[in-house]
Amino acid sequence: MEIRKKHKCFDGKVVFATHESKSTKTPMNFSFYKPDGHVDSAIIWLSGLTCTEENFMTKAGAQALLRDTKTMIICPDTSPRGLNISGSEDSYDFGTAASFYVNATEAPYKENYQMYDYITEDVIELLREEFSISKYSIMGHSMGGHGALVIGLRNPDLFRAVSAFSPIVNPINCPWGQKALKGYLGDKEEEWKNYDSCELLKIGHKHSKEILIDQGLADEFYPEQLLTERIENISREVGQKLTCDKSEGYDHSYYFISTFLPKHIKHHLSLLN
Amino acid sequence: MEIRKKHKCFDGKVVFATHESKSTKTPMNFSFYKPDGHVDSAIIWLSGLTCTEENFMTKAGAQALLRDTKTMIICPDTSPRGLNISGSEDSYDFGTAASFYVNATEAPYKENYQMYDYITEDVIELLREEFSISKYSIMGHSMGGHGALVIGLRNPDLFRAVSAFSPIVNPINCPWGQKALKGYLGDKEEEWKNYDSCELLKIGHKHSKEILIDQGLADEFYPEQLLTERIENISREVGQKLTCDKSEGYDHSYYFISTFLPKHIKHHLSLLN
Repeated sequence: MEIRKKHKCFDGKVVFATHESKSTKTPMNFSFYKPDGHVDSAIIWLSGLTCTEENFMTKAGAQALLRDTKTMIICPDTSPRGLNISGSEDSYDFGTAASFYVNATEAPYKENYQMYDYITEDVIELLREEFSISKYSIMGHSMGGHGALVIGLRNPDLFRAVSAFSPIVNPINCPWGQKALKGYLGDKEEEWKNYDSCELLKIGHKHSKEILIDQGLADEFYPEQLLTERIENISREVGQKLTCDKSEGYDHSYYFISTFLPKHIKHHLSLLN
Repeated sequence: MEIRKKHKCFDGKVVFATHESKSTKTPMNFSFYKPDGHVDSAIIWLSGLTCTEENFMTKAGAQALLRDTKTMIICPDTSPRGLNISGSEDSYDFGTAASFYVNATEAPYKENYQMYDYITEDVIELLREEFSISKYSIMGHSMGGHGALVIGLRNPDLFRAVSAFSPIVNPINCPWGQKALKGYLGDKEEEWKNYDSCELLKIGHKHSKEILIDQGLADEFYPEQLLTERIENISREVGQKLTCDKSEGYDHSYYFISTFLPKHIKHHLSLLN
């Protein structure tokens, strides 16, 4: 990996780096916070639409919470960049910074937008080889909350804890998800279901530990895009342990995330250790 | 005041607002975090070069620290904006976002760049009238650390606590300071000393409580611009209580500020209560 920037922070270090991805066949940016001393586990944070690898590291306040732990946090970028794919920069919810963490099957995205593989293979390999880490968990926000739920449910043995802030829980049934899944996967709606946490639960995917979700009730995307109740209902039906906390007055921003991050970090630490 | 944006955060609210300033004769932007419930005191945070009222609120993590207190924090913008003064947008260290918190005496800045008065009069009036607050303290970073030291030393009865991160302690003797003071105050070097914490201490200004400074030793501006040792030496000579903590490896960024903010907040809370 090539280190681009490094900052000492809460005794440890915040690093911005780039590595070559086998999955996307591009350089991929990421950031991480590694507390001082030996680490033995890592939380993967997946960001939402429009974000880079920087937003979470700057705004969430995770460093203070991980300072005295053996757990680092790594924040991958939200898509490959610099590909000059026609149309990929035209909207905030498709293309650059909007990968939805799927393996695209449609041209021209299928060549590089292999973000499901990137997270589950390249990022894991990086953590294993650069940091000798063998215990992982995953969390994310909005599009990244969707990514965390889908990746966690499809890989329950790899990720010891799964949680999400304001996740898009049922993308096959909301405008953001339908646009992205159609663009990356074409009309094969059966294939879409592999990237929908509600559908994955329906067909038997399950995580043995409690999944944690936080949702703000003043979130402007809550009613139309996030469809939070659907994962609550399906989890109840199929017996997936799920805590979904809804809080009055909170919106979709990092001011919401930073407020509830301590609870999520605590949940992850308890399952990583 | 006109509220532009509001976010619930750690039970309280982060607000971005604008009010009309008598001192600058312009609208001025500011942000604040007010914890839930009754507040009786306020910390004024002064930001550094290039910042707006947003940086601290987004990056420093103050909300978590003030959640269960009766103390709010307010972050004024770093200069008037939108004035179309020729040259005021040409460099990062003079003009827009670089007021140095002085009352300018030179044309064309003297008409609006009355930022010393803005902080000590308009912001205080806002806190008193909108929030019924009568206990104040002041802190800041870099140019804002300079502002906090100067304003605190010149108004020791108004500000119960004074602290700074990586402050420009002796602007009359560093390139940033000389450029700004000459631009805003002209060649009257005696006038510059009213905005130099070392010079103010020399002529008898003093704060009855300990002043707290944190400085990172990997700060790229430390040796040439900040001149930290000078305020340590002068404080010792004149009997100003000062703790200046220098920490290996930390730079000039918000990753440094967020690390040491808990200590500063604790210092301010102890003197505000």
